[in-house]
Amino acid sequence: MSEENTVFIGKKETMNYVMAVVTQFNSGSDEVIIKARGRAISKAVDVAEIVRNRFIPNSEIKDIVTTTEELDREGESGTANVSSMEITMKINK
Amino acid sequence: MSEENTVFIGKKETMNYVMAVVTQFNSGSDEVIIKARGRAISKAVDVAEIVRNRFIPNSEIKDIVTTTEELDREGESGTANVSSMEITMKINK
Repeated sequence: MSEENTVFIGKKETMNYVMAVVTQFNSGSDEVIIKARGRAISKAVDVAEIVRNRFIPNSEIKDIVTTTEELDREGESGTANVSSMEITMKINK
Repeated sequence: MSEENTVFIGKKETMNYVMAVVTQFNSGSDEVIIKARGRAISKAVDVAEIVRNRFIPNSEIKDIVTTTEELDREGESGTANVSSMEITMKINK
């Protein structure tokens, strides 16, 4: 799975990421990975749900994995723990 | 799985829900389900990650399922779609 099949969820509107996933599938990808950290995790779930319910009915969520990442705190010593999530979507052709 | 093994994530502090899950396991439950909707989904993932990393090392996430729920809009006609998530945690004895 290369980086080009991965959509990183950030601060843009949800539909931007929905379109990014749809575009990946329409360009021939069998699987797309949606990655998010912290509060963006809720948005990642929205993206996956909207893609499969409204845009690509023959897509589905294959797997969801969560982990904890240690991030360096900006300008401070020590690290902060943040949850991250990877949603793997696949298309049934 | 009865309702008593389920922890619903709401507006309280994350650690309240972590303690609720830990208490369920310590009272003998083999599985605990963490449920959340909308923005609380990120907090649900935090809860699961904190439980397994800091409190119950022999627990793990068995399954994560997402769905879309239709909710009636308060005081308005029509419905709103909201993503929901169920995280099933289990303990390895």
